[in-house]
Amino acid sequence: MNRIITIGREFGSGGRELGKLVAEKLGIAYYDGEIVAAIAKRSEMAEHYVEQVVEQRIMAYYPLTVGNTLSMINQDFSVNQSIYTAQTEIIQEMAQKSDCVIVGRCADHILAEMHPLRIFVYADMAARVARCRARGEKGNGGQTDRELEKRIRAVDKSRAQYYRLYTGQEWAARGNYDLCVNTSSMPIAKLADVVAAFATVE
Amino acid sequence: MNRIITIGREFGSGGRELGKLVAEKLGIAYYDGEIVAAIAKRSEMAEHYVEQVVEQRIMAYYPLTVGNTLSMINQDFSVNQSIYTAQTEIIQEMAQKSDCVIVGRCADHILAEMHPLRIFVYADMAARVARCRARGEKGNGGQTDRELEKRIRAVDKSRAQYYRLYTGQEWAARGNYDLCVNTSSMPIAKLADVVAAFATVE
Repeated sequence: MNRIITIGREFGSGGRELGKLVAEKLGIAYYDGEIVAAIAKRSEMAEHYVEQVVEQRIMAYYPLTVGNTLSMINQDFSVNQSIYTAQTEIIQEMAQKSDCVIVGRCADHILAEMHPLRIFVYADMAARVARCRARGEKGNGGQTDRELEKRIRAVDKSRAQYYRLYTGQEWAARGNYDLCVNTSSMPIAKLADVVAAFATVE
Repeated sequence: MNRIITIGREFGSGGRELGKLVAEKLGIAYYDGEIVAAIAKRSEMAEHYVEQVVEQRIMAYYPLTVGNTLSMINQDFSVNQSIYTAQTEIIQEMAQKSDCVIVGRCADHILAEMHPLRIFVYADMAARVARCRARGEKGNGGQTDRELEKRIRAVDKSRAQYYRLYTGQEWAARGNYDLCVNTSSMPIAKLADVVAAFATVE
């Protein structure tokens, strides 16, 4: 069975960067934005629309009861649902194809039967604000720390809702992960060495 | 400054075993029960009594307001307080003396200024029950899994209350640790290698 590493992460914690480095160190595939493109292709929807749904988690803003209340299904819901279904298939295919690192997308849950190594990446708020500034995301320039913090909390809240909706589990709860790494006080490149070592424990 | 590793752990997760192995691998001191003996010596109380207070956290059963309500201070409270004070001094002395691993005792908080590497060790309930049985603790023999689970939850609850009382922080909350390790599915000896590598990240 392939060696699969899934990475959940707080917004601004550097989880994506860590995932990329771990994949490089182990010489295995890395999936993140690529999944969006693949979903778009499969679902024959415009890529920018799928990206909006997956990245911004429109789904996550629905009340949590939606998933259980058939009468509330509407067009938006079924679009989101079909994207999640396509995403699930694509993630399963990727994991079947070769060893890989997959960031986000409930991959830990989707691939549970393959027993992936489940990593969660987090950091102090100050470190996350600094990271968001350093990577110069669109619109960060004029934002105060307070505004950035608010945005970071909102993205995490949205991730938590999305994860709960599709997995029935609590996002970021330690029991769902094999290793939780705080990137606040150590260089991510060094942490990637450690995670890679962890991934190769027999 | 000395390299200090503090280990918080869920009951039955193997945190103590992991801590011992990490100390061995790094060739540094390991402290756990030793602290109890030292407190007893310093405070001139019987070791078994100190153990009862520290291990079973009698203190933890006091309402949380006790710490803030001077009028409620009574003899038991001051005994607990003096044990905590002695423990704090001893932990600080140990950390000043040499590199070391310290398990439990709010050492992460007590030594915050020394920037210890703060590890938290946890595991699934099933793994914890199995570990408790395997190490054959007193009185485990006749207990059902359900009874053991109840005991495990009670010890953790007590640790959480104790930690909250003395640190003002939430026990087991990821933000208080640099690395959280799930011992459910990997051999502790291998995990100790990884933690030792993590501890030597420059």
